[in-house]
Amino acid sequence: MRRLRDVGEHRWLDQLTARLARRPSGGRVAVGPGDDAAVVHPGRRPLLLTTDTLVEDVHFRRGWTTPAALGRRAFAVNASDLAAMGGVPVVALLALEAPGRVAVAELDAIVTGFARALARAGGSLVGGNVAAGPHLAITVLLAGEAPGRVVTRAGARAGDVVYVTGTLGAAGLAVSRLRARHRGRLAEPPIRVDAGRRLATVASAMIDVSDGLVQDLGHLCRASGVGAALSLDRLPVAPAVRRALGAGAAAFAARSGEDYELLFTVPRRRARALGRLVPRLGCRVTPLGRMVAGRPVVRVADGDGRTRVLERGGFDHFRA
Amino acid sequence: MRRLRDVGEHRWLDQLTARLARRPSGGRVAVGPGDDAAVVHPGRRPLLLTTDTLVEDVHFRRGWTTPAALGRRAFAVNASDLAAMGGVPVVALLALEAPGRVAVAELDAIVTGFARALARAGGSLVGGNVAAGPHLAITVLLAGEAPGRVVTRAGARAGDVVYVTGTLGAAGLAVSRLRARHRGRLAEPPIRVDAGRRLATVASAMIDVSDGLVQDLGHLCRASGVGAALSLDRLPVAPAVRRALGAGAAAFAARSGEDYELLFTVPRRRARALGRLVPRLGCRVTPLGRMVAGRPVVRVADGDGRTRVLERGGFDHFRA
Repeated sequence: MRRLRDVGEHRWLDQLTARLARRPSGGRVAVGPGDDAAVVHPGRRPLLLTTDTLVEDVHFRRGWTTPAALGRRAFAVNASDLAAMGGVPVVALLALEAPGRVAVAELDAIVTGFARALARAGGSLVGGNVAAGPHLAITVLLAGEAPGRVVTRAGARAGDVVYVTGTLGAAGLAVSRLRARHRGRLAEPPIRVDAGRRLATVASAMIDVSDGLVQDLGHLCRASGVGAALSLDRLPVAPAVRRALGAGAAAFAARSGEDYELLFTVPRRRARALGRLVPRLGCRVTPLGRMVAGRPVVRVADGDGRTRVLERGGFDHFRA
Repeated sequence: MRRLRDVGEHRWLDQLTARLARRPSGGRVAVGPGDDAAVVHPGRRPLLLTTDTLVEDVHFRRGWTTPAALGRRAFAVNASDLAAMGGVPVVALLALEAPGRVAVAELDAIVTGFARALARAGGSLVGGNVAAGPHLAITVLLAGEAPGRVVTRAGARAGDVVYVTGTLGAAGLAVSRLRARHRGRLAEPPIRVDAGRRLATVASAMIDVSDGLVQDLGHLCRASGVGAALSLDRLPVAPAVRRALGAGAAAFAARSGEDYELLFTVPRRRARALGRLVPRLGCRVTPLGRMVAGRPVVRVADGDGRTRVLERGGFDHFRA
């Protein structure tokens, strides 16, 4: 097995750069990987920039996923941020931290998994960096553009309906099973780039569900300066979560992270426009409740008609 | 002392975002920190993108520098990559990895040091991420533009003269002293953004000296498909290195990394144009030798007239 320390940083990067150079890149790339910086022809549309990191033993363990799936995941979690603004990927940089003992084949598979997922979404890998570190960490810089409107977290108004794409809870259930039994695989996040671009034509605000529905809706409430009122029994709970947790499934799904679905609000006057979009989104869309005037908190009604105020709750890197 | 795990990821980011929002940002920023992605108005010039990471106990130790200087360094090493293409910073993202035990004040100082150095160079911090990790790691994504020509590593031709800005070896000497005696401070890298922008009007190829002069000139040779012939006794060795190492100073300075000076080639016909630029660069410029036809290797003549071929040599993360 060839390890990174046997090959060396520069030789590995030279080989990788040569391989990447053979991939077709969009006409936007003037200078790709291998120089001091990448050079990209400017577009006419707003430039969107986001970054997210996957850290070994924090966001994943090596046995939980294949290297190629880890690369795809690194793309997916960043693409999800662009999708939540109505943006599509254009170019990306990949900054890796890795110990010298890592197999070159593993790093190659991570980069290839990332680059292929990016290419399928219309983007090109134009550069990056590799640094020595005690563990594997994958930081992505994803640059994109909004083909139409840019949707922030701040546009929701009282009366708007709150929706979410897909289903919730499956990713969190998989992680809790992996932690308990060390068996199974991390769920592959959905790619909602096309859905996000279309939803941007009708949404007043949008965010992706990475830290859990309640917490991410809380972010949207604070940015928009309005509250939200949801019914727990409306939540599109993933079937595996219902089977596993029964009556507690919806409460789990409301706080469970890493689903990477889109949570968005739509003014009533655009409800019919949303209805026309839904068949083309490639995923279900479920109304959860409404935005309400007042404190920017999330009120959740459970099945028995009791309502609780949830200010925080969900994933935080530094809190239990 | 408030630690990150006491405050939590989201509350720290909320406070940081509020503070950053009070800083003036260029008119180019439509959506700054705090949403899913930053939104930047497009420019008409080529977009330059680069990333580099500082990893604790690899690139720095906590006692070697202050948190603010570490933030400035994270900016400087990335700005150096842009400068080497003739680019100037526009916006940046900052991706941090940190253990929960880190003091909030330390992270704040890193971010502030970074944001101030970026602002002095005309750029704005528009977003980022913080993830839990076993140690501190700072990954910067720097996006810039080239006001004029973009200069790659690939444009050098036989006959071009090789130059370097500033002096060499001081950063490497400081690191070797810190490793041996654990005393002193990391040198603050120079910011050559303005020099790089001006040099781009005359240079045929350019690279920054991060891994050592010989190694970085080797990268430039391979990209350009020509060799280089240098005289070791022409090297602008830093005075501290001459004092410390005497006769061995130039050989040390030729392989020593982290000086972040600009290494560039100029066709003879532009020698006079370079001469007119030099007084405005804010640093000295020293001719080291010439590019020569043939194999893309670096030939170095020492003071005794002996010539050696150096194909590699200098810093590699994964090799001794």
